Amino acid sequence: MTQPDDLLPIGLEDALPARAAAITSAMRQVLQSMDAHGYDRVRPPLVEFEQSLAGRMEGVATRRMVRFTDPESLRTLALRSDMTVQVGRIAATSLREAPRPLRLCYAGEVATIKADQLDPARQRLQLGAELVGSDSVAAAAEAVSVALDALEAAGVDGLSVDFTMPDLVDTLAEEALPLDMEQREAVRRELDMKDAGGLKAVGGEAYLPLLYAAGPMEQALEKLSALDAGGVLASRTAALREVAAILGERVRLTLDPSERHGFGYQSWFGFTLHSDKARGALGRGGTYAIKGSDEAATGFSLYMEPILEALGKGEAEQRDTVFLPLGHDRSVAASLRADGWRTRAAVNAEDDAATLGCTHRLENGEAKPL
Amino acid sequence: MTQPDDLLPIGLEDALPARAAAITSAMRQVLQSMDAHGYDRVRPPLVEFEQSLAGRMEGVATRRMVRFTDPESLRTLALRSDMTVQVGRIAATSLREAPRPLRLCYAGEVATIKADQLDPARQRLQLGAELVGSDSVAAAAEAVSVALDALEAAGVDGLSVDFTMPDLVDTLAEEALPLDMEQREAVRRELDMKDAGGLKAVGGEAYLPLLYAAGPMEQALEKLSALDAGGVLASRTAALREVAAILGERVRLTLDPSERHGFGYQSWFGFTLHSDKARGALGRGGTYAIKGSDEAATGFSLYMEPILEALGKGEAEQRDTVFLPLGHDRSVAASLRADGWRTRAAVNAEDDAATLGCTHRLENGEAKPL
Repeated sequence: MTQPDDLLPIGLEDALPARAAAITSAMRQVLQSMDAHGYDRVRPPLVEFEQSLAGRMEGVATRRMVRFTDPESLRTLALRSDMTVQVGRIAATSLREAPRPLRLCYAGEVATIKADQLDPARQRLQLGAELVGSDSVAAAAEAVSVALDALEAAGVDGLSVDFTMPDLVDTLAEEALPLDMEQREAVRRELDMKDAGGLKAVGGEAYLPLLYAAGPMEQALEKLSALDAGGVLASRTAALREVAAILGERVRLTLDPSERHGFGYQSWFGFTLHSDKARGALGRGGTYAIKGSDEAATGFSLYMEPILEALGKGEAEQRDTVFLPLGHDRSVAASLRADGWRTRAAVNAEDDAATLGCTHRLENGEAKPL
Repeated sequence: MTQPDDLLPIGLEDALPARAAAITSAMRQVLQSMDAHGYDRVRPPLVEFEQSLAGRMEGVATRRMVRFTDPESLRTLALRSDMTVQVGRIAATSLREAPRPLRLCYAGEVATIKADQLDPARQRLQLGAELVGSDSVAAAAEAVSVALDALEAAGVDGLSVDFTMPDLVDTLAEEALPLDMEQREAVRRELDMKDAGGLKAVGGEAYLPLLYAAGPMEQALEKLSALDAGGVLASRTAALREVAAILGERVRLTLDPSERHGFGYQSWFGFTLHSDKARGALGRGGTYAIKGSDEAATGFSLYMEPILEALGKGEAEQRDTVFLPLGHDRSVAASLRADGWRTRAAVNAEDDAATLGCTHRLENGEAKPL
C-alpha cells in the first residue's frame, strides 16, 4: 500500500507492520551482538545544542541539520544527524572517569533537513559501537569483527570489507612525496574524484599510482609498497596486514588506499562494509580522535536501510495467532500467551478469525487450527 | 555522574549505561506484551507536516511543538510530540483497507520545544497500542488489560486503575442537567479545578455531587446513579461495570467521573494507570474517534519515565563477562558468546580484566572466575 504524495514530507516515511517487524528484528540482533562483545548501550537525546553536535567531530556539517532556537537558553538547538558525536561527548564528559577502553553502543533515529544527492531519505536509523581510548591494531580488528558479527546475526550475507587509509596523503606528503598544504587538499580532492588528469594538473603526478592500487588486499598492499620508496608507510601496511590476518578468511577483503569518502575525520584506518545483496554501503568505521578531548577511538556505524535491502524484502510472515471469541476464558488466553502464542480477541460480535489474520481459534480451552 | 549544566539543554538528557539498559529491558517487555495480544508495531517518522500532526486529534497543541519550514515543500514541519496521532493517520490512510478491528502498537521518542509546568522533560519515550475500528466494552476492557499486562511484564507492581467518563458533562448537559454551550465549557473547567465555589458561580450547582463522586468503583457508581435522575447515564455506568467485571480482581479500580485531564478528545471511557511506586501516572487511555476519518478507536499510551520510577533505580547489575587477553583464540571467544557469555577483549597490552568490569578471564580455552 503506497501513500499519497502529500501525506508525508519527501524523504520521510512510515514503516508499516511487515517493515517495522524486519527493522525491530535486525536492530535487536545487531544490539545483542554488540552487547555480547561488551559494549554498553547509551541513549543520547534527539536534540542538543548545535555547537555540541558540530564541535565534537570533524566532518559533521551543521548546514543540513534541523536547527531552531531554544526558548529556554536562547541558544541554537539541532536535531541530531549523527550519533557518533553524541557518544564522543558522553565519553568526554559524563563517562570521562570511566575505565578505558570504554565500549559504548547506540541505535537511534537521526535526521537532516535536506537529503543528500544520492539518497532522498531525511531520516535514518543509525546503529553503532565505539571503543574509546584506543586505536590499536587490536581495536581496529575488533571494530571490523563486531560489525561483521552484528550484520551476520541480523541475517546479512555476501559480506565484504573494503579497507582504506584515511590519512595516507598527509603521511606521504610529509617527506616521501612532498606537497604543500594547499596541494594536499587538491591532491586529496582529485584522488576522491579518481581523476588522473586532474591529479597531474595540481602537481600530484607522484600520487598517480594510488589510483591504481585499489584491489584485493595483498595485491593492493604490494602496489602500495612499490610507491613507498622511503618506507614511511611500512608500519601502516604492516598494521593493515595484521588486521587482515586477525580477520582471517571470514570475508573478502579489499583495499582502496586513497578512498576517503566519509572518512574525513579518521586517522590511520578506515573500512566500509558491503554486501553483494545491497547497492550502497551497509556501514563504515575506523580509527579517529574525539574532537575536543583528542582521545583515540575506534568504531563503526551501520544504517538500517541498506541492511533491509541486503536482507531482501521478504513476505509478511503469517504468524500463528489464536482467535479468542467474545466472552472467552481470560485465564486460558493468558496461559496461551505465556506459552508463546499470539492472540487476537473479538471485541464485537461480528469479528471473524480469518479476517483478523488468525490461524487458530480458541475452542474448549484449546487452540484449534482454523 | 552528573553532567555540567550547560552540556545539554534543560529537559534533555543522556541515558547512561545502567539507565539505558533499564529502558531497553522495559521497552522490550512492553512491546512483547502488546505483540502477544496481536498488536502489530508501526514506526512513523520523527517529523511530519505540522498540519498532519495537528489535524488528526483534538487536544494536540501545536504551540509546544518544535516547528520549522521544509526547504522542499515550503510547508511547516513539526517534530512529533505524540505518536497516537501518527497511528491514527496510518489507520486512516495507508491501512485504510486493512480489516477492522486493526491493532497497531508503537514505541518512540516524542519531543516538545517547551516543557509543561509539572515536568521539565522535553523529550519522552512513548509506548502504546491502539485498537482501531471499535470502542465497545470489550475493546475498553482489552485496552486496560493489555496496558496492565505490559506494565506487569516490565516488572511494575502496586498497580491501580482510575476510570473516568470524559464526555460526562456533555451527556448530562443535553437534558438531565441542562447547560448551554458556554456554560458547559465553564462547568468542565471548574470540575477540572475541583472548585466547588467556581462551579456554583458559573451556574453548575447541579454538578456539585460529581466533585464528591470519586472513589472506589462501586461506591462512585452509586453516587453517580443518585445524580442520574433521568437515567441518561444508565448505559454508561452499566458499561463501566462490565469493564470492571472483565478485569476482575487483578488491580484496585477507582472512578473519578469528572476527571478530564488529558482526556479532552475522548468519548465514553477513559482510564489512568498508577503504581504506588511512582508519583505521576504511568499512562492513560480510553475510547475516542480518529479525527478526520471519524473512526472509533480505543487505546492507551505509557511513558518510560514513570515506569522507571516505579521500577526503582536499581544498582547497575554486575553481569558475567569474560576478559579475553591479547592474542586470544577467536574461535573459543566466539563459541563463548554463542553460549550466552559476554566478552570484553584486551586491545592494549596493559588492559586489565577487573578494571574493564570483567568477572572471568579466558584461560586455557575456558572462562575462569577472576
